[in-house]
Amino acid sequence: MSYFQHHVFFCCNQRNPGDTCCNDHKAAEMQAYAKDRIRALGLKGRGKIRINKAGCLDRCDEGPVLVVYPDAVWYTYIDKEDIDEIIESHLVKGQIVERLKLEG
Amino acid sequence: MSYFQHHVFFCCNQRNPGDTCCNDHKAAEMQAYAKDRIRALGLKGRGKIRINKAGCLDRCDEGPVLVVYPDAVWYTYIDKEDIDEIIESHLVKGQIVERLKLEG
Repeated sequence: MSYFQHHVFFCCNQRNPGDTCCNDHKAAEMQAYAKDRIRALGLKGRGKIRINKAGCLDRCDEGPVLVVYPDAVWYTYIDKEDIDEIIESHLVKGQIVERLKLEG
Repeated sequence: MSYFQHHVFFCCNQRNPGDTCCNDHKAAEMQAYAKDRIRALGLKGRGKIRINKAGCLDRCDEGPVLVVYPDAVWYTYIDKEDIDEIIESHLVKGQIVERLKLEG
């Protein structure tokens, strides 16, 4: 049993202007949104879900990216609708969102 | 197969003075040390190891903490010798360091 059932890390790295980076795609805003949604759903905490910021996850060209552990499932996303789908499908029901899933 | 064989997140959160937090225990310094060691060992990259900073992992009272995914093994540590042992035992050989391991 994992300490968190789903532990989600958003790449929130900010690189220099001109370099591709997740934070140019609203990563910090989307992380805050996901965190608020999980709290509102009563799913925050030990044995449940944790939404974290992380430094550069080194998949810059595929960004913005997040990873769900211990599942080791990587996603990209564009907007709050995508985040809602990841929450409602993967985090709540355990069903991977294939259309947003990255390889590996 | 996970994108990273071992994906390590150091809690590097800095709370207000008086509040217990990982960054009061050299978390950022230890993360930088681990990252340098993994690079020097030629273990950095896809299919191998990634060392990341993270926001608050919400185990403040047990800190400083790090977590190794997808294994979902949590550790505390004090100094570079502890980090070296986690690298050489867990990350290189896949053997959990029981004396530093946290529950869950």
